[in-house]
Amino acid sequence: MNKFMKIAFEEAKKGIWAGHGGPFGSVIVKDGKIVSKGHNHVVVNNDPTCHGEIDAIRKACKKLKTFDLSGCEIYTTGFPCPMCFCAILWANIDKVYYGCNTTDTETIGFRDKAFEESIAKKKKSICQELDREECLKLYQDYNNIENKTNY
Amino acid sequence: MNKFMKIAFEEAKKGIWAGHGGPFGSVIVKDGKIVSKGHNHVVVNNDPTCHGEIDAIRKACKKLKTFDLSGCEIYTTGFPCPMCFCAILWANIDKVYYGCNTTDTETIGFRDKAFEESIAKKKKSICQELDREECLKLYQDYNNIENKTNY
Repeated sequence: MNKFMKIAFEEAKKGIWAGHGGPFGSVIVKDGKIVSKGHNHVVVNNDPTCHGEIDAIRKACKKLKTFDLSGCEIYTTGFPCPMCFCAILWANIDKVYYGCNTTDTETIGFRDKAFEESIAKKKKSICQELDREECLKLYQDYNNIENKTNY
Repeated sequence: MNKFMKIAFEEAKKGIWAGHGGPFGSVIVKDGKIVSKGHNHVVVNNDPTCHGEIDAIRKACKKLKTFDLSGCEIYTTGFPCPMCFCAILWANIDKVYYGCNTTDTETIGFRDKAFEESIAKKKKSICQELDREECLKLYQDYNNIENKTNY
């Protein structure tokens, strides 16, 4: 077994036996060294966003004092859900190694695959535009701020 | 202007003038009452996952002591990026009211639209399966745990 995946695996295992959440562990690696480890804490933290990948990303960013993880790789026991996959893109992580795929994850009762398939439909059914004109003024204000940090 | 969107707007405004991040504020409402307010803290917190919606979701879950926000609505100044949209689905939020759309958000320099369009491509280019067989054992262990909290 790959040495970093092994650590992601152990991290996930620790989480499930402690009742923290699903069997999802992640390790972030830079230049061959571990930057952070994370696992799913949804149940224990009452935080639906605290998946293994996001837990590891937050910790890596805290450690490296940046929101930009360019040059990093992530090892994760299950293929990232759309939330985590986009978090990986926002963080500029270069490479994702995953163990189980989305169908495997569906088999143990998680909604990742359903979300992947239904997101386009849900975007139409549950979303409604409201006060765009006023919100555009906010965007304009932001755009006019000089020397801001773009990300 | 809608009263909840107005509060999301003010929350975003506070954030941009404080240099916290982009012009994105969110309010979560249940039964006509505000549960939480959030805004983008990516830059100030060095947390690429701390978008306005996720900030508001975390706070609402903490307040209501649950990871399940069924019965809640979210008001947000910009259409949620794929990360936030999926976080909204994981949290079981029923309805999303948004001000600016994804094209508006692209205009002020954010990558939401690019991510929406390139996610399928990126999934192929940056992801690689690794040690699935071992990771499936982890899933099996999880599956065998009795009386666990499914979410």
